Amino acid sequence: MESLLFQPLVDALASDQPQSVAEAANLFNAADLAEFIEQNIENEAGRYVFQNLPLTLRAKVLGYTTPDTQLLLTEATPLAELSILTAEMPSDDRVDFFNLLEESRQKQLLRKLDQEDRDVLTALLAHAEGTAGSLMSTDYAVFESGITASEAIDILRKTAENKETIYQSYVIDGHGVLIGVVSLRRLIVAKPDTLIDSLLATGLVSARTDTSQDDVARLITKYDLLALPILDHHDRLAGIITYDDAMDVIEAEATEDIHKGGSVSNLDTGITTASPFSLYRSRIQWLVILVFANIFTGAGIAHFEDIIGAHLALLFFMPLLVASAGNAGAQSATLVVRGIATGDVVNRDWIRLFNKELIVATALGLTMALTVWTVGVFRTELAIATTVAITMIAVVLAGGLIGILLPLLLNRLGVDPAAASIPLITTIADVSGVMIYFSIATIILGP
Amino acid sequence: MESLLFQPLVDALASDQPQSVAEAANLFNAADLAEFIEQNIENEAGRYVFQNLPLTLRAKVLGYTTPDTQLLLTEATPLAELSILTAEMPSDDRVDFFNLLEESRQKQLLRKLDQEDRDVLTALLAHAEGTAGSLMSTDYAVFESGITASEAIDILRKTAENKETIYQSYVIDGHGVLIGVVSLRRLIVAKPDTLIDSLLATGLVSARTDTSQDDVARLITKYDLLALPILDHHDRLAGIITYDDAMDVIEAEATEDIHKGGSVSNLDTGITTASPFSLYRSRIQWLVILVFANIFTGAGIAHFEDIIGAHLALLFFMPLLVASAGNAGAQSATLVVRGIATGDVVNRDWIRLFNKELIVATALGLTMALTVWTVGVFRTELAIATTVAITMIAVVLAGGLIGILLPLLLNRLGVDPAAASIPLITTIADVSGVMIYFSIATIILGP
Repeated sequence: MESLLFQPLVDALASDQPQSVAEAANLFNAADLAEFIEQNIENEAGRYVFQNLPLTLRAKVLGYTTPDTQLLLTEATPLAELSILTAEMPSDDRVDFFNLLEESRQKQLLRKLDQEDRDVLTALLAHAEGTAGSLMSTDYAVFESGITASEAIDILRKTAENKETIYQSYVIDGHGVLIGVVSLRRLIVAKPDTLIDSLLATGLVSARTDTSQDDVARLITKYDLLALPILDHHDRLAGIITYDDAMDVIEAEATEDIHKGGSVSNLDTGITTASPFSLYRSRIQWLVILVFANIFTGAGIAHFEDIIGAHLALLFFMPLLVASAGNAGAQSATLVVRGIATGDVVNRDWIRLFNKELIVATALGLTMALTVWTVGVFRTELAIATTVAITMIAVVLAGGLIGILLPLLLNRLGVDPAAASIPLITTIADVSGVMIYFSIATIILGP
Repeated sequence: MESLLFQPLVDALASDQPQSVAEAANLFNAADLAEFIEQNIENEAGRYVFQNLPLTLRAKVLGYTTPDTQLLLTEATPLAELSILTAEMPSDDRVDFFNLLEESRQKQLLRKLDQEDRDVLTALLAHAEGTAGSLMSTDYAVFESGITASEAIDILRKTAENKETIYQSYVIDGHGVLIGVVSLRRLIVAKPDTLIDSLLATGLVSARTDTSQDDVARLITKYDLLALPILDHHDRLAGIITYDDAMDVIEAEATEDIHKGGSVSNLDTGITTASPFSLYRSRIQWLVILVFANIFTGAGIAHFEDIIGAHLALLFFMPLLVASAGNAGAQSATLVVRGIATGDVVNRDWIRLFNKELIVATALGLTMALTVWTVGVFRTELAIATTVAITMIAVVLAGGLIGILLPLLLNRLGVDPAAASIPLITTIADVSGVMIYFSIATIILGP
């Protein structure tokens, strides 16, 4: 399918004429071209297509490719051409690209840029990774208060080319302080001589340069914004973040949260593009932590050596009970951690969530106890089946409550509960499961 | 903090005058009002604010509230008012709202709508849940081919009020077949007498009414679209889906994937709003499945009763080894499942991913074997420490490879690998871990 989509480009490449490659490329938009180039980066066709695109399009295509591909595509580009290319990029892409380069090349490139571009770039570079400042673009449309709708439209018409969006414009006072936002929709619909000040949207939503990118994405999603204005600490407009960047953040955040749930940490990219070493690094940390956590479970078993030796049949149910405690813990922890991430759960909810989990986990435990007792009576003696059934209720309840309380406690202590990873909670529930099981067994089956 | 934001509204409510409530509400945008109403739905203040909003704003606010709140807010609304309210809603919100109502009320409401609204509604209702058709809006701006940029802007100016977006307009031929998309940006910048046909964007991206909503969201993200045109099977424009709906889909999909990773299935809402019963239902299914899966682990242990009885110390390391197999499996499964969900991994990648995992899992296994051997020699005899270390390499490798292959196999068989849930893969890795451990122990420590 994919090869069919790109057939015109493949044919043009076969003809080996730069002119026909450029013409064929003209049929595609930047995102598609980026995909083709990405797929063919290793066989030179990707680079060849890229080199034969007009400069503006090349700048756009770069914004859609991965960091690795960006470096590959530009490593041989002469400095003079590279400076024009970076000048053509939207200011947010430009910062990301600049950050990829080696320091010596950064310095050379910086010297080639004109004063204004250089100032913008160094200002944007000053913001910490993961903040609104590092994500924002400075290519926004801005009006001073007091002009009319038709004057505003005229300004947009003339400056549209260099703007990230012209659908939202920002109105500032003489000090650069943001007064409000006016949409092109309102400008178009309004009578031409209406003052823009009377067209401002109600309930201005904005963020700060040091707001986290997750919070920015959440604001854009919550208010269905096309773009969010970013203010410095004097309330002056410093930049904007558009919805498409927010979508990328939401997707990246979701990937990070899903990875962490599977005890994979700090992996920016997917499994196909990550190197074996970065995969190793992102996985070994939690595996080793969990080794030490599980040693406690082993110690727990050692403590109950006598009762196990006397009733070896208890062992057959151990994986089941330990896994059930862990699974119940993983379930409630997953729900709470996701709730915290989306802003659905806040710390003061804890009593309500605890009580709810008490009801849900008891019901879950009873159902599972019944299931396991029914299986148990056919496979072992009644006393053991009963021990297992009673334990099941206890461990599901314990696991479920640990899963609720631990993430909330971590959040209270200022630790990101997703980073603390659900596998650790599962392991703690596991250990508790072992202790509860053999304690109950000791009581029922005697010392 | 939140109460401070809404202070003007709280003060107005205290004054008990509908007029001042309406004025205070006027300071907020629809998303904020929805939040306030949602927070105060139980103490009547929410309903009171809602009732005192102008009808257009009420329609907008409804679109930002949860289904439960929508029903609560409108249950007492007389039919005549309800029909005006639904007519004011964007067509996509209208369908969702309509689907919430009881069948008798649906029928009554349908009779109250005028012919055109009724036709649009019934057409949209015909599309299956989760498809583009069920998500799309019919309030798009459309031009017939052959008009000029200034004529197009005039049309937009007059019809803007009823459109979901005027920033992307759709150009169709005499049969309603979509020819292309033109942005308001291009219309504004172009000379007034330019034909819109020459302003169309290159590389038209569209989807079908039966395309899944995940694929729609992926297209919108990939191409940074403001809106995606949706075609029927005669290539006629049937509706559009805007970026804000795509953001909601991405977030909902991420929540679903994260829940499934924690073995919670089919929970549409978060832990704070879900009822204990729906939480029970979403969790019991996997817990019971995992009970049966874990019985195999128990049976595996039973099979090795003799070697365990002879060397009880083996037991202390069992939780550790089983958990390591499961964790390694969960890690690689998480990476593959997420890769499949984002389109990063396709089936033909399997050999490449298998080989990569072979390298990574061997490295992980060696590191962990070294760790556990070091711990082991201080706590038990050398033969057992060595058995444990060798087993560690084998189980991490087995777990890692199962985690890679099983999701790909499920995907190949047409089963959504996220739905098959990572906990099951973890459990399969657990069972393998037990078998491998005691088999190796039998070989090294004798029968």
